[in-house]
Amino acid sequence: MGTTSKALSLLELFSRATPEIGLSEFARRAGMNKATTYRLLTELAAHGFVEQTGSGREYRLGPAFLRLSALREAAVPMREVALGVLNDLSKATGETAHMSLLQGELLTSVAYTYSDTHGTQVRMEDAEVLMLHATSSGLAVLAFSPADFVDQVLSQPLKARTPDTVTDPAQIRQQLKQIRQNGFAVSISGFEQDVHSHAVPVFDSSSACIGAVAVAAPVARMDDELQSLIQTEVLNHTTRLTRLLGGFAPPSFPTIT
Amino acid sequence: MGTTSKALSLLELFSRATPEIGLSEFARRAGMNKATTYRLLTELAAHGFVEQTGSGREYRLGPAFLRLSALREAAVPMREVALGVLNDLSKATGETAHMSLLQGELLTSVAYTYSDTHGTQVRMEDAEVLMLHATSSGLAVLAFSPADFVDQVLSQPLKARTPDTVTDPAQIRQQLKQIRQNGFAVSISGFEQDVHSHAVPVFDSSSACIGAVAVAAPVARMDDELQSLIQTEVLNHTTRLTRLLGGFAPPSFPTIT
Repeated sequence: MGTTSKALSLLELFSRATPEIGLSEFARRAGMNKATTYRLLTELAAHGFVEQTGSGREYRLGPAFLRLSALREAAVPMREVALGVLNDLSKATGETAHMSLLQGELLTSVAYTYSDTHGTQVRMEDAEVLMLHATSSGLAVLAFSPADFVDQVLSQPLKARTPDTVTDPAQIRQQLKQIRQNGFAVSISGFEQDVHSHAVPVFDSSSACIGAVAVAAPVARMDDELQSLIQTEVLNHTTRLTRLLGGFAPPSFPTIT
Repeated sequence: MGTTSKALSLLELFSRATPEIGLSEFARRAGMNKATTYRLLTELAAHGFVEQTGSGREYRLGPAFLRLSALREAAVPMREVALGVLNDLSKATGETAHMSLLQGELLTSVAYTYSDTHGTQVRMEDAEVLMLHATSSGLAVLAFSPADFVDQVLSQPLKARTPDTVTDPAQIRQQLKQIRQNGFAVSISGFEQDVHSHAVPVFDSSSACIGAVAVAAPVARMDDELQSLIQTEVLNHTTRLTRLLGGFAPPSFPTIT
């Protein structure tokens, strides 16, 4: 590992749970001697990547990140990051992947990718609007949204998009419980006939749910093997996307095994 | 300069104007040979600090910054950063410094610091609400706000807080022009009798004006020397605060000499 890698790997030791780390603790966790650790931290501090604080002179992340993250966001908007992940997800599952963002009480589709594995695939429309109760993405978002928001959405008359749309609030609340346990939501023909979709919520930097990533496949193609593959892949890729966007899943979110 | 410093200094070459940089250009700007530059960029890329893009395989800032800046913000909220800068500003000027943030059409004071240089000083209140037309902070914000927002604020009846408050929209517009040229606003007894204040706008990552930093001194103490000192210091410290918060002054903002 090069010197620079050693220094950067020190930064990776910070987390929500450990926002400040002392020199000895740094050396211990990084498996380096104190003199080397100190030298690397001093270089990081000179560039505003860490700073020292408090009576114990512990280290925390420095002010350089705010500026650099603003430049990164200006150079690579969220949609471009999402497209990269969706592309991988389509390739891994052989099905259509899409991302939608919460706007008020609706989800708007912001990016989608197709696979060329099969002749048939679920087609998406640009800026399609998804109802929260009738789609796997919407259910994934509801399951990780504040209770008063869920109450508000479910207290309104819920329209049936298809004969299979679940519109009973009590039944939906049961589904939300299950989704909180699994980390993903499922909808079979709830929004479009013959579409079977799986969705996982996306979280922002304050662990608020801001949208979802879903994989949509024809019902005719869905078997146990494909279901299991999609569940694993959509969980893995969406977790990665949340990270890439600077977000954090809440502690209640199931850990991927 | 250590290896890590060399690598981190490469990151400092990115800006709004140059979001992507090729290998040769990196080497040239950094004054390093291509092999060394390549090795450092490869280490940075391995940790998500840069990534390659496009047909030219140019480098841009990587996804690591969004996550690290979210962790930085969680560890050190904006108010704490502001207090550090205000403290320096009070020390440098011997006067009261404060920061306020725009909320709707009002400014709310979010942080302030006193100097112990003089027996008398301008006192602040917690969460004080400042009118845009009657304070130096408000005028600084108006001068760098969108025209429709200025029209909206100035089209309403403007209250006089003191006999010296300027309430004539045409006269205020003249002041705003001057503020855009100077980079700072001045108010003498416009909000509180016998208070002379100077303010400079604070910008966010999209160069929108989000608030202002001001230095408030008793009119009785203000002379040419103190005015000149305050103008220099409030410009320098507020520019630093905008940077620390990840913000960027718009291109129209006067360059500090």
